Amino acid sequence: MARISALQDNDGSLLRLGEAIRARRRALDLSQEALADAAGIDRSHMGKIERGERNVTFLNIARIATAMGCRPSELLADAEL
Amino acid sequence: MARISALQDNDGSLLRLGEAIRARRRALDLSQEALADAAGIDRSHMGKIERGERNVTFLNIARIATAMGCRPSELLADAEL
Repeated sequence: MARISALQDNDGSLLRLGEAIRARRRALDLSQEALADAAGIDRSHMGKIERGERNVTFLNIARIATAMGCRPSELLADAEL
Repeated sequence: MARISALQDNDGSLLRLGEAIRARRRALDLSQEALADAAGIDRSHMGKIERGERNVTFLNIARIATAMGCRPSELLADAEL
């Protein structure tokens, strides 16, 4: 499990990515726990990702996107990243 | 510096992302060293990212994209990710 600090998120991009994940999850009527389980990500780590508190890795972005039926690039574009 | 294994890259997505970074870098006539320096990423780590050998973090994807004048979502879309 990646435990990389988000302290270097100077421009708030991790926050925006987390918000985009949350928005898409809610649009699918998925709980955070259900998304975490579907993506194979630890539930508490998933919460930190949604709150922009972790510098999420590409493979976890890809797992989250797959679990929500979209592409990683779409998640980033949702957040205007 | 993130040193996360790429062993879980089952579908080759890190390889494709690395190839997309390399292709865009070459189109800009940038050396790998120049891109690493512009992005503030260790040169040897940059090489591993381009070869798909590291599970690159979102903030590093963002730094690489910024250094090449594009968005992170565009880099991923280049790789059909």
